[in-house]
Amino acid sequence: MTLTVIQHVLTRLQEIGISDVFGVPGDFAFPVNDAICRQPGMRWIGCANELNAAYAADGYARIKGVAALSTTYGVGELSALAGVAGAYAERLPIFHLVGTPRMAVQRARAIVHHTLGTGEYDLFRRMSEPVVCAHAVMTPQNVAYETERLIAEALYHLRPVYMAFPADLANQPVVSRASPVPLPQSDPTQLAAATRAVVAALEDAETACLLPGLIVARLGAGDRLQRLVDASGLPFATMFHDKTVLDEQQSSYAGMYDGALMNKDVQSFVEGRDRIVTVGTLMTDFNTGSFTANLDPKRTIAIDHHSVSVDGHTYPSVELGDVLDALTAAMAKRDWPRISAGSLGPMVGEGDAPITAEALYPRWAAFIRPGDIVVAETGTASMGLGFARMPSGANFYNQTLWGAIGWATPAAVGAALADPTRRTVLITGEGSHQLTVQELGLFGQLGLKPVVFVLNNDGYLIERLLCKDPEISYNDIAPWRYTELPHAFGCDGWTVARVATCADFDAALTAAAEANSGAYIEVVTGRYEASPLSLKLSEKMKQAAEG
Amino acid sequence: MTLTVIQHVLTRLQEIGISDVFGVPGDFAFPVNDAICRQPGMRWIGCANELNAAYAADGYARIKGVAALSTTYGVGELSALAGVAGAYAERLPIFHLVGTPRMAVQRARAIVHHTLGTGEYDLFRRMSEPVVCAHAVMTPQNVAYETERLIAEALYHLRPVYMAFPADLANQPVVSRASPVPLPQSDPTQLAAATRAVVAALEDAETACLLPGLIVARLGAGDRLQRLVDASGLPFATMFHDKTVLDEQQSSYAGMYDGALMNKDVQSFVEGRDRIVTVGTLMTDFNTGSFTANLDPKRTIAIDHHSVSVDGHTYPSVELGDVLDALTAAMAKRDWPRISAGSLGPMVGEGDAPITAEALYPRWAAFIRPGDIVVAETGTASMGLGFARMPSGANFYNQTLWGAIGWATPAAVGAALADPTRRTVLITGEGSHQLTVQELGLFGQLGLKPVVFVLNNDGYLIERLLCKDPEISYNDIAPWRYTELPHAFGCDGWTVARVATCADFDAALTAAAEANSGAYIEVVTGRYEASPLSLKLSEKMKQAAEG
Repeated sequence: MTLTVIQHVLTRLQEIGISDVFGVPGDFAFPVNDAICRQPGMRWIGCANELNAAYAADGYARIKGVAALSTTYGVGELSALAGVAGAYAERLPIFHLVGTPRMAVQRARAIVHHTLGTGEYDLFRRMSEPVVCAHAVMTPQNVAYETERLIAEALYHLRPVYMAFPADLANQPVVSRASPVPLPQSDPTQLAAATRAVVAALEDAETACLLPGLIVARLGAGDRLQRLVDASGLPFATMFHDKTVLDEQQSSYAGMYDGALMNKDVQSFVEGRDRIVTVGTLMTDFNTGSFTANLDPKRTIAIDHHSVSVDGHTYPSVELGDVLDALTAAMAKRDWPRISAGSLGPMVGEGDAPITAEALYPRWAAFIRPGDIVVAETGTASMGLGFARMPSGANFYNQTLWGAIGWATPAAVGAALADPTRRTVLITGEGSHQLTVQELGLFGQLGLKPVVFVLNNDGYLIERLLCKDPEISYNDIAPWRYTELPHAFGCDGWTVARVATCADFDAALTAAAEANSGAYIEVVTGRYEASPLSLKLSEKMKQAAEG
Repeated sequence: MTLTVIQHVLTRLQEIGISDVFGVPGDFAFPVNDAICRQPGMRWIGCANELNAAYAADGYARIKGVAALSTTYGVGELSALAGVAGAYAERLPIFHLVGTPRMAVQRARAIVHHTLGTGEYDLFRRMSEPVVCAHAVMTPQNVAYETERLIAEALYHLRPVYMAFPADLANQPVVSRASPVPLPQSDPTQLAAATRAVVAALEDAETACLLPGLIVARLGAGDRLQRLVDASGLPFATMFHDKTVLDEQQSSYAGMYDGALMNKDVQSFVEGRDRIVTVGTLMTDFNTGSFTANLDPKRTIAIDHHSVSVDGHTYPSVELGDVLDALTAAMAKRDWPRISAGSLGPMVGEGDAPITAEALYPRWAAFIRPGDIVVAETGTASMGLGFARMPSGANFYNQTLWGAIGWATPAAVGAALADPTRRTVLITGEGSHQLTVQELGLFGQLGLKPVVFVLNNDGYLIERLLCKDPEISYNDIAPWRYTELPHAFGCDGWTVARVATCADFDAALTAAAEANSGAYIEVVTGRYEASPLSLKLSEKMKQAAEG
C-alpha cells in the first residue's frame, strides 16, 4: 500500500525509535494529528501547551535518543520554539512536525487565522531556522529523500529538525523513493592515526584522566566508553552537564570537577594530570566553574564528536564511538593514580529542626535509588544535588547550557513516559515549577508515578544570590498552595506532603519511597538556604561587581 | 541628573502611558529588572512565565494603548515570541525589553548559559524580527534617538518593537539627545480631496453603512468615530474582531455582520447598501464568515489607517482619525435607512435542566454589565457570546486573527490591571485555559477581582467540530478539578462554583455578580453543546471536505 506523506514520515520515525509524539492539536495540523493517532504502535501525547510539549520531547529524547513534537502553524510552533532551541543547545534530535495551511491558501496570500495577517507564509519556518540543523516542507515528491536527509542531519548533529506539512499535501500518496542514509563511517586511515597518537600520548604519561561528556550519552555510547575505562584502567572526573554519563559508583570515578569553584581535590587531580582526555564534552560556563577550569591545552587530548585533537594536530572524520572502540582494543591496562570520589556531607538535623541546606541535599541524595531517572531543574536545587554521588544506573539530567527554568517539570513527564520501568524523580524549585506546572496533569492522565520534590524557598533563590539586591520585588513570586495542585490537576491517589522540619521530611521521604503512587513533596526551607555551588557563584558575582 | 540607558527608555515609556512592565526576571536582564523596580511610578509585574507575560501585556495594551514586556536573553525572549507575534497580528504596540549578555561576552563568543553554545549572539534578535516592526540594540550613544524611532514605529504601525539591553551598557549614562518624533500629520491636500470624494460618494447614495474596525479601537479613536456616527446619522454593523469598537446599545447599530454564516438580515443590510464604508477593518477569514462576506469593491469606501480608497482612487498620507474629524465636519445628518440589531435568544432552561448552548449564552450575555471588560478566548465560547448585544461601555476582546488558545487567561490579568475600576470577565474553554492557567495566581497576588468562567465540555470542542473524527484522542485533555485551582494558586476568598444545571448556574451567576471578590465558575455542559457560529463553521468544513 502506498503511504501518504505523513504516514511515510511517521513510519520512518518509528523505525528510528519514536513511538510517542508530544503536541497540541490544531486545525492546520489535523492531517498530522489524525495520522499520529491512527498510526499503529504510535501514541499521541497531548500536552497542556506547546512549550511543555517541547520540553516533554526533550526529556523523552534524553532517554530514548530521539523524540517528536507536533504543533500547528504559527501560534503552536512559535510557542514551542524556546523548547526546540533548548534541544538544539542540549544536543537532542527532536523532529518538529508542523501542520501548515493548504498550499492554495498560501499561494493566495489569504489572511487567515494563526497568521500575522500580512499574507506572508514563510516567516515562521525562517524563525525556526536558527534553532534546527535542517528543515523542509514535505511534499509527495520530496518526502522520501527529505525524510532521510532530515533523519541523517538530526542524528549526525544531535540537533532538532523542522518538518512542515501543508494540510493538503500531508494526506497525498508518496510518489518518490529513497533509502535510509547510513550514519557516517570513520575514515580508517584517520582513525588509525588518531588512535596511535592518543595511545602514544598516554603511554608517555605518568598520570592521566578522562572527562566523559554529554555527547557520549547523547550517542548512546556510554557502554563503549565504559569498556575503555575498564580496559585502560583510566580514572575519570565528571563535569556538571555530563553527570552520570559514566556510573559514579565505580572506583575509577574521581568526583565532580567544576574548575576552581568546588572540590579542590578533584581540581588538583584533573588539572595536575600529565594528560586529560575529554570525550564529547562542552566547555561551557557552568561546566567549567564559570571558566575557572584551567586545563592546559598542551596536555589535553580532545575526543570530539567527529574528530580527535592531540598535540596540536586534529584528525577529522573520525566518529567518537569508533575512537572509543579502537582505543579499547589498543590500550593496555595500567594502574593509573586515582583518587576516591566524595559525595555530600552527612545527613544532619532531626526532629523539629528546620530543613537547612546541610539537612536537605544529603537526604535527597540518600533518597535516590539505583536506576532512577533524576530530572533536576536549573537553580540552587540541582546545584546542590549535582554534587551527590549517584547510585549505579541512576541518571541525573539537567539543562545546564540552555538553563531555561520551567524545563524540568514537563521534561520529567517525557522521561517517565520514555521508560516507565524506572522511577522518575523530579527536583525543582517552586519558582521554576510555576512556569510549566500544568504538565503535572499529564502524569496523572498517563498513570505515571513520579516522585516530585518542590523546593519552596519563597522566591527565585538563585536570583536573590546573583542580583544586587536580593530582596528586590522581582524575586518574589505568587504564593501558591503547592500541595493542592496534584489533586486539582487530576493526579489521583498521590502521596502528598508539605514539610518544613527534618522529622516531617524524613517521614515524607519514607512515604514517597514506599508509595505505589505518584508522590509530591513540598520542601519548605528558609529563604536563603542555598547549595554550596550557588553560594560560590554568588561570591564570584560579588567579587566581579566590586573588581 | 544624567539618566542611564535603561532609565531613559523607562522614562520615555512612562511618558507614553506605560506604568507597568510584565515579565520574568533573569540574570542577563538584572540591570533592566532592577531599573524597572526602582523607577518611581513604575511597577514590575512578575508573571509565572514569559508567554503569559506577553499575553498579559497584550491585554494591558488593549486597554491602555501601549504595554511593555521584559524578558531575559534566549530562554526568556523565545518563550514570549508567540505572544509578541500575537501582538503583531492583533495590532498592539508592545515594547519588548530583552536583557542580553555583556558586550565583552558577546565579542568573545563565550559559550555561556541561555545560548545555543555556538558563540553566535545575534540569532535571537533575528528570530524576533518578523514579529516586530522595528528593533535596536540600545547603547549610550544611540539610546536617545533609537528610543524615539522605536516609539514612533510602534505607534505608527501599531505593532511590537524589540529593544536589546546588553547587561554592561544598560546602566551606562546616556551620551546622546533626541526629541520625540511627533505622530505623522495628514497631508492637507490629500485629506481635503479624500474627504470631498467620500462625502460626494455618500451624497449620491440612497443607502449606506459603516463597518467600524479594530484599528479605530487601537488608535483610541472610538470617540471620533462616534462623533461621525452622530453627525452623519450613518448606521453601522460590526464584524467579529471589531466587536464593541462602537457602543452596541445605540439605534445606529445594525448588528453583527459575519458574511453568509450568521445573521442573514445583517448580511442583506450591509451587502445591499449603495455604499459600505469600512473604517480600519481587517478582512480576515474570521471577520468575513470564512470569506463568505460579499462586499462589492465598487461600492466599498475604505478608510484605512493611513489612506482612503474610494471609487478606484487611493488617497495616501491621510490619517484615519483626521479623516473621521473631517467627515464629521463635512457631512450633513441624514435619516439613513437602518435595521435594529438583534441579540441572542431568550434565556431558556431552569431547575435541573442541563446547560445547553441555548441556556448558556443568553445567561452570559445577561451577566455582562455596562463598562465590563470581557476577555473571550478563541473557541466555541467566544463564538457564542460574540453575537450577544453588549451593554453600553462594555468591551469585548478576542484574539480573532492570531487565535492562539491560552491567550485569554493572562490577557484578562493584564486588562484587569490596566483598569481595575472596571470589572473584568474572562470567558474561556477549559482546553484553552489549561495552556496558561497558572496566571490565575497573579489575579490573587495583585488583589484583582475578575469573574472567570471556564466552559468545561470535556475536551477541545471547536476541534471536535472541525476535524474528521470528533472522538479522536487528540481532542481529549487531562481531566482537572478546575474549581480547586483558585485556592491552590493563592486566590483567597474567591467565590467558586461548579455548575451543571440551569438552577445552579443561575445561583452562581447571582453570587458572582454580588461578590466582593474574584469569582471562578466552572460551567459543565454536554460535550457537543456548541454555539451557532461554531456549528456553521463545522458544517462549512464538512461541505468543503465532501466537495
